Amino acid sequence: DKPFVLFGGINVLESRDLALKSAESYVEVTTELGIPYVFKASFDKANRSSINSFRGPGLEEGLKILQEVKETFNVPVITDIHEPYQAAPVAEVADVIQLPAFLSRQTDLVKAMAATKAVINIKKAQFLAPEEMRHILHKCEEGGNDQLILCERGSSFGYNNLVVDMLGFGIMKQFSYPVIFDVTHSLQRPGGRSDSAGGRRQQVTELARAGIAQKIAGLFLEAHPDPEHAKCDGPSAIPLKQLKPFLNQLKQLDDLIKSFPDLDTL
Amino acid sequence: DKPFVLFGGINVLESRDLALKSAESYVEVTTELGIPYVFKASFDKANRSSINSFRGPGLEEGLKILQEVKETFNVPVITDIHEPYQAAPVAEVADVIQLPAFLSRQTDLVKAMAATKAVINIKKAQFLAPEEMRHILHKCEEGGNDQLILCERGSSFGYNNLVVDMLGFGIMKQFSYPVIFDVTHSLQRPGGRSDSAGGRRQQVTELARAGIAQKIAGLFLEAHPDPEHAKCDGPSAIPLKQLKPFLNQLKQLDDLIKSFPDLDTL
Amino acid sequence: DKPFVLFGGINVLESRDLALKSAESYVEVTTELGIPYVFKASFDKANRSSINSFRGPGLEEGLKILQEVKETFNVPVITDIHEPYQAAPVAEVADVIQLPAFLSRQTDLVKAMAATKAVINIKKAQFLAPEEMRHILHKCEEGGNDQLILCERGSSFGYNNLVVDMLGFGIMKQFSYPVIFDVTHSLQRPGGRSDSAGGRRQQVTELARAGIAQKIAGLFLEAHPDPEHAKCDGPSAIPLKQLKPFLNQLKQLDDLIKSFPDLDTL
Amino acid sequence: DKPFVLFGGINVLESRDLALKSAESYVEVTTELGIPYVFKASFDKANRSSINSFRGPGLEEGLKILQEVKETFNVPVITDIHEPYQAAPVAEVADVIQLPAFLSRQTDLVKAMAATKAVINIKKAQFLAPEEMRHILHKCEEGGNDQLILCERGSSFGYNNLVVDMLGFGIMKQFSYPVIFDVTHSLQRPGGRSDSAGGRRQQVTELARAGIAQKIAGLFLEAHPDPEHAKCDGPSAIPLKQLKPFLNQLKQLDDLIKSFPDLDTL
Repeated sequence: DKPFVLFGGINVLESRDLALKSAESYVEVTTELGIPYVFKASFDKANRSSINSFRGPGLEEGLKILQEVKETFNVPVITDIHEPYQAAPVAEVADVIQLPAFLSRQTDLVKAMAATKAVINIKKAQFLAPEEMRHILHKCEEGGNDQLILCERGSSFGYNNLVVDMLGFGIMKQFSYPVIFDVTHSLQRPGGRSDSAGGRRQQVTELARAGIAQKIAGLFLEAHPDPEHAKCDGPSAIPLKQLKPFLNQLKQLDDLIKSFPDLDTL
Repeated sequence: DKPFVLFGGINVLESRDLALKSAESYVEVTTELGIPYVFKASFDKANRSSINSFRGPGLEEGLKILQEVKETFNVPVITDIHEPYQAAPVAEVADVIQLPAFLSRQTDLVKAMAATKAVINIKKAQFLAPEEMRHILHKCEEGGNDQLILCERGSSFGYNNLVVDMLGFGIMKQFSYPVIFDVTHSLQRPGGRSDSAGGRRQQVTELARAGIAQKIAGLFLEAHPDPEHAKCDGPSAIPLKQLKPFLNQLKQLDDLIKSFPDLDTL
Repeated sequence: DKPFVLFGGINVLESRDLALKSAESYVEVTTELGIPYVFKASFDKANRSSINSFRGPGLEEGLKILQEVKETFNVPVITDIHEPYQAAPVAEVADVIQLPAFLSRQTDLVKAMAATKAVINIKKAQFLAPEEMRHILHKCEEGGNDQLILCERGSSFGYNNLVVDMLGFGIMKQFSYPVIFDVTHSLQRPGGRSDSAGGRRQQVTELARAGIAQKIAGLFLEAHPDPEHAKCDGPSAIPLKQLKPFLNQLKQLDDLIKSFPDLDTL
Repeated sequence: DKPFVLFGGINVLESRDLALKSAESYVEVTTELGIPYVFKASFDKANRSSINSFRGPGLEEGLKILQEVKETFNVPVITDIHEPYQAAPVAEVADVIQLPAFLSRQTDLVKAMAATKAVINIKKAQFLAPEEMRHILHKCEEGGNDQLILCERGSSFGYNNLVVDMLGFGIMKQFSYPVIFDVTHSLQRPGGRSDSAGGRRQQVTELARAGIAQKIAGLFLEAHPDPEHAKCDGPSAIPLKQLKPFLNQLKQLDDLIKSFPDLDTL
């Protein structure tokens, strides 16, 4: 019942400048609103729709930028990895390492991540039921790591669409690990543009409110100073300048929700 | 942005006593909490899974009970109809008449309902996209009735399951009619029991919070003093004694949500 | 394991001439190919997307046309009804009466149909799992009618799309009633055009082959001499002139499939 | 329009003996039936539900067994890889290398596979629409490889279920690459058993017939001498002794389907 943590940042490390500028905005807003904050950015987008899509600066350069963000703003950072060999070096910088949704069942990746002892953020795959996350949690535990987070990001709903099943949060909370909500990726329209995912940025407030109303441990989101020109997932990203009013509302909502006693409606 | 209206009651008019007793509880709780209230009950369950399932008292006896509830507690009432001939007599008693989800595309029923000039609550079918509700609204308008309400109650999600797409509320709100949320039917597990629908009553608080967080015009729900022994849809019904704490939380949530200015995240 | 029966015709009785002309083509082709044949046409499209959509000639005029088709070509006819009062008069002309998918759970309609002793073709609703058809069969049986046919026509798959689950045929066959396949309605794109359903007529051969490969009792389809100008469901209808080569292939396929012994792969 | 190729084998290389014994059965049956044949087996199951599930002999030992099968029976072999480093060594033995469904969007894996010049079998992910396979094909082409195969294996349909959309074959065929059908994995029930996927082996004939009726380039399947005791995916595997009658029917079906001229139903 602690206040929600924000895992917020940019989709991909387009540049050092973008990372620092964005982190500054996030830190300023979350400090003012009293929201615990973790900076998020990817060093490599490993599953873009096209081989020619922008992927990011790569592991080495990416970790440098993350390190600089971490030191400059004194915030923890989270980033995602895609191959087992990346787990150890990334965990030296990142406080939380993220298991991507499509890869969430890859045993070797899970084992390598578990071995780092970093906190692991497990993205729920679009093809998995909430109950099935139990197996991935067990894999991590068997690998010796129980600092785990489960992250909802939508389920396949027909073709080219995702839906967030609000009942899934309650099911996943029963596993006794923190459950967070990646609201911006849940807004994706897979295959919605000719060569990449579309999105529904204009509905981010609506979906975020529904998620925060689930009494969750954290919110995950991506913003961009100019979403129309973001190099990846712009259609789902929040305009950076809207961050403060957006989070301000969610903070109030979270406070109210967490002031409510649980009800036994069974 | 007015406070939400509660369309609350019992699934089916099991008896005059149950109706009056339940209405009394609803009225007491909603008066205390300052929630505008409409009593709901069906006089006929016309699409039960089995021909032997309990259907209710029928049109004539049912309207008598609804009339008594209306006069005793001075509240408006809502009930659903299934055939065109029922529209006129029902509208003499009911303030709001409800178009069932499975029947929402039946032109003659829509026309008969529109002709009554009663307010029409249009249940969104499990097989329709939010955008498609436009056609049903148009049918009603063409029939001369623009006192319309749209009611979300879940979408088919694979077999024997429903999911509520929170993004659908925003889409339906663009049609400029009040949008409400039938939270208890959205908890159904179609075909989930051997001979009737199952439900997930224990998650009603979670789903209701998500819905109220969508800044909606109303909440629709069914309760029962003893859900385990309800004659229909018990697995989705709220225990009547939980009504007050349940609505108390939702009222606070609604007040907060409606105090928020709209954000332009586009 | 008898050869498949064709339930073929036109979507709606646009005119007496269209009905007679189409029936003539069907009779000619099915006679030549040795396919048992039932003429299908609707006298009323009771759930069009718009109140202004063409609905057909209505009950009285429609039955006259069906009667004329029946007498002229000496073929049985099938048509669908939407309200209980229509069951008896329609069953005087129609050999098979059809329960529409959206209405397949309406108890009074099922009871009225069962009482006629006509054969009932039960369309499987887009929101029902194959297993759930058991309840509708039971309703009919309880109503005293066991001359029943189950008809697959696709399941809701996200928004504005249907998918035919080929495994559903085998599940429904276990109920020991004939199972048929409505291939043209399964090609619908619900809400796919601005004011009516779209379709995928160009894929009808593919879907029909998959269905006939399921060793089914019958195929249901709609054709039109000029699908682009059909008054309803043109996007899913087969061009009438393609009927012979289309059915010729399916007849050969059906013969081969039904020559195969069942395999126990359990 | 050439006869279908069988990509058949065992799920995982449980042992050298099982591989050789199974290959012998496949070779014997396919030779007799005149079906071009490729032996399939995995050396590593990299995404089992549990960390303790059996994974297989690993890369080195697995390739030895595949090499032995290849030499003993003079058949091409196919196997799947999960990390970029595996592509080159595997392609020295395997004639076809397979991109797993969950990993089908991982750019580095696709690039490594493309660089080998081996034929690539691209499994369609459960979360991708048929149209979206275009991007993966492009990735391979950009990587310099146009010896590509697309393989259907079902789409997410609600939770814990897959459905095969028969219309997807026609859509994927438009990309001008061979399209094949993995019938046994399409029978999976994801999360259907407490710790692994369930299956519907008893319906394999039905689903295979529907697929072969789509005029496809190949069929992919897994069998086992004793499916109940298979170390992985037993619930979907065909009993090895049923292979001959099963393929015999499908061969006849394929011959007939491919004797049909295409019909223009547009």
